[in-house]
Amino acid sequence: MSKEITNRKDNYSQWYNDIVNKADLAENSPVRGCMVIKPHGYSIWEKMQGVLDKMFKDTGHTNAYFPLFIPKSFFSREASHVEGFAKECAVVTHYRLKNDEEGKEIVVDENAKLDEELIIRPTSETIIWHTYKGWIQSYRDLPILVNQWANIVRWEMRTRLFLRTSEFLWQEGHTAHATKEEALEETRRMIDVYADFAENWMAMPVLKGTKTDSERFAGAIETYTIEALMQDGKALQSGTSHFLGQNFAKAFDVTFTDQSGNLEYVWSTSWGVSTRLMGALIMAHSDDNGLVLPPKLAPTQVVIVPIYKKEGQLEQISAKANELKQQLQEKGISVKYDDRDTQTPGWKFSEYEMKGVPVRLAIGPRDMENGTLEVARRDTLEKEFISQDQAVEHVSQLLENIQSNIYEKALKYREDNTYTTDDYEEFKDILNNRGGFVYAHWDGTAETEQKIKEDTKATIRCIPVDGDQQPGKCIYSGQPSSQRVVFARAY
Amino acid sequence: MSKEITNRKDNYSQWYNDIVNKADLAENSPVRGCMVIKPHGYSIWEKMQGVLDKMFKDTGHTNAYFPLFIPKSFFSREASHVEGFAKECAVVTHYRLKNDEEGKEIVVDENAKLDEELIIRPTSETIIWHTYKGWIQSYRDLPILVNQWANIVRWEMRTRLFLRTSEFLWQEGHTAHATKEEALEETRRMIDVYADFAENWMAMPVLKGTKTDSERFAGAIETYTIEALMQDGKALQSGTSHFLGQNFAKAFDVTFTDQSGNLEYVWSTSWGVSTRLMGALIMAHSDDNGLVLPPKLAPTQVVIVPIYKKEGQLEQISAKANELKQQLQEKGISVKYDDRDTQTPGWKFSEYEMKGVPVRLAIGPRDMENGTLEVARRDTLEKEFISQDQAVEHVSQLLENIQSNIYEKALKYREDNTYTTDDYEEFKDILNNRGGFVYAHWDGTAETEQKIKEDTKATIRCIPVDGDQQPGKCIYSGQPSSQRVVFARAY
Repeated sequence: MSKEITNRKDNYSQWYNDIVNKADLAENSPVRGCMVIKPHGYSIWEKMQGVLDKMFKDTGHTNAYFPLFIPKSFFSREASHVEGFAKECAVVTHYRLKNDEEGKEIVVDENAKLDEELIIRPTSETIIWHTYKGWIQSYRDLPILVNQWANIVRWEMRTRLFLRTSEFLWQEGHTAHATKEEALEETRRMIDVYADFAENWMAMPVLKGTKTDSERFAGAIETYTIEALMQDGKALQSGTSHFLGQNFAKAFDVTFTDQSGNLEYVWSTSWGVSTRLMGALIMAHSDDNGLVLPPKLAPTQVVIVPIYKKEGQLEQISAKANELKQQLQEKGISVKYDDRDTQTPGWKFSEYEMKGVPVRLAIGPRDMENGTLEVARRDTLEKEFISQDQAVEHVSQLLENIQSNIYEKALKYREDNTYTTDDYEEFKDILNNRGGFVYAHWDGTAETEQKIKEDTKATIRCIPVDGDQQPGKCIYSGQPSSQRVVFARAY
Repeated sequence: MSKEITNRKDNYSQWYNDIVNKADLAENSPVRGCMVIKPHGYSIWEKMQGVLDKMFKDTGHTNAYFPLFIPKSFFSREASHVEGFAKECAVVTHYRLKNDEEGKEIVVDENAKLDEELIIRPTSETIIWHTYKGWIQSYRDLPILVNQWANIVRWEMRTRLFLRTSEFLWQEGHTAHATKEEALEETRRMIDVYADFAENWMAMPVLKGTKTDSERFAGAIETYTIEALMQDGKALQSGTSHFLGQNFAKAFDVTFTDQSGNLEYVWSTSWGVSTRLMGALIMAHSDDNGLVLPPKLAPTQVVIVPIYKKEGQLEQISAKANELKQQLQEKGISVKYDDRDTQTPGWKFSEYEMKGVPVRLAIGPRDMENGTLEVARRDTLEKEFISQDQAVEHVSQLLENIQSNIYEKALKYREDNTYTTDDYEEFKDILNNRGGFVYAHWDGTAETEQKIKEDTKATIRCIPVDGDQQPGKCIYSGQPSSQRVVFARAY
């Protein structure tokens, strides 16, 4: 077992890095903060993309593509946006290299300096709203429901694979509407899509709520978020949907003629999820043996491994395995039959365990005699022998079972690590020593939020939109509070 | 008709721009040379991506993702590659902006200068081979069959939407092999995949061949290409597949232990197609009424337009239209029923004609009485009335018919504009006055190639791999030639 990984309890952070590395998900590149997403990691991202893309199309959106580069001046147009986004970013200043005078090296050609620097997009509101100005004249041109799949660069000083990288992949929806109500409805629709995806595909329970002023997207009037709890008791913001009001329409002067002939500014939203979801997926379910994937997002759902000593045995096992593979594929299940002779069954077992394949079937000569096979489930590591005749039915059900089991397990973990308190000492003790989500009253001020952050390193993850919305008194200041909010330390 | 477009014969170049613009495919952005791919254009690109991605996976490839940025020094590693690619490119020199001293503007923070400049990838061989070094030790690690879908930047002075833009989208396959034979086989396999895609999906006939030394990819030992003929008699290189030998393995020191225990350099290939294919698709089939799309790549294959005066009529027509829509969808046909009341049927007819929807069905009150509907096919603009009962069968067949008809039409155009000559005066006359592909003998020297280019603006598009390979005498120098090659002016 060269692939041993660090135990979660010993060093959670190293455990995460080990899984990303040893399950072949991603690796650091020679460019600081940028990652290489390896084939296994990318195939999971592709599954996520496929599902999300269908959800977006089912809710009326189409894809488009906008430039990677944004003229520097665009960032100054929306006042709060520039503060939030135009700082740590990659700046293109030149457009040509040349051989140096000795001809040994290539150097930047100082004659090829851009008149205006270009910024690699850290998010695309500005370039998109500049473009929408040309697309929108009348109410007939609305709504515009567009999404973009793209790479994004935000220069980060401390990076972690998937969770925080200078370049990452994401989707960003940018919609334009005739009315405030319609834009608000869209904002909420998309956070619901994200919550649906997180819970029903990633098997990851999430809290849904709005952000406080200080945590809001730069340029937004309201930011909706979904927040998941990782196994170290820290929260991970997994998706956001922003109601932008008329801010970007005003910044880029985008108006339309309404049905009464009046000229109005357009209302807008934006919403996005990124390869950060890969980090969430890894941390939500994995264990000390490696990656655990929800069957619905596993690129390979079932692997079949033959166990044999002689060639004749392999032939017989392969016939059965290929038959099974075909039957499972007919049910829409993705199956890999690994009959490589360059690796032992033991090596394969630990490899697929590490990579999170939900179900492993093993067939040996004795199984062929008995008409049985061994089924191992990745989530609980339980094994059992079943009849070959029942295999297809059994595996189909098992995949559903694993999907719901890991969701329930994650939900139970969250419930076990969710606290409600009105006592500030207890509040600090939980956040400083135990972790998890803490429901507490807050007076609504940025000052209190900041003080609590200094005491506990925790931030307000969201103001929940569901559940208990009783008023009370702020846990820190004693001032009136309209409802409990959720505190946690976060990624 | 506000959407009139320039006739091909009057101004071919303007005709192309008009279609791109008025069929809502793409537009120029505020960043010089970068385009916005609009929803309709992007939906066609998505169809192309989907088909190609499946073809790549069916031939054993997986996707991965490598960084946008490449350290400047990487380009110096492969001698001919640096000449070809490290010149006109976007250079990132800084990673932070700040408010200027008066606080009115944002400026580049000179304290945030990168130690080594980063180049936005113009192609990814260098960063990928740097990465592969860590992935390859033994023959067991080979082959690596990886593809990447990504954006690419090559700073272009003269740009045209889709055909030549500073930023474009593409896929780049990068494979690593244990033997030369295997790498050569892969190179040819992928050019065959591209030819298959061009002919059977894009309905665009292509010539397959190799490039001359001067037209070869920088760093390749052999470049295979597919070349299509556009309606103005110019060739368009539509896809390339490169046999890279051991060049990149040597540049990045990537070796493996073979089965006999010897250390060998790895053999490699790379291959790619880009959003340039959108330009090819547009020019291959479109006419003076707008875009013509092959049904297999049309996002909407059939549009149904109701024609009515009273509400009651619409209701009746809609019932029939929705029934038809469902029946067609069950056959895997994509259908849009456009019952918007904000536009007239005439407006819709010209809109869908402009956008290249292959089949249009119109149903009016008289049709409802007669049990008929009107079918219009986009390729020939022919219309006919058919029985509603036969509509599903008729439309299915019509779509296949259109697919093969536009291929045949493009093939006939190419045949009508392909010449073979041994006379240099005639050769020049064809290229300077008529256009098209010209098969002629060439002595194999770069000098002759250059002279011919000066006389005719034509280049050698490829040395064909199929067909007549008889030797002869060079049309320019009279020196021996091993086979005819294909000349044309090109995009």
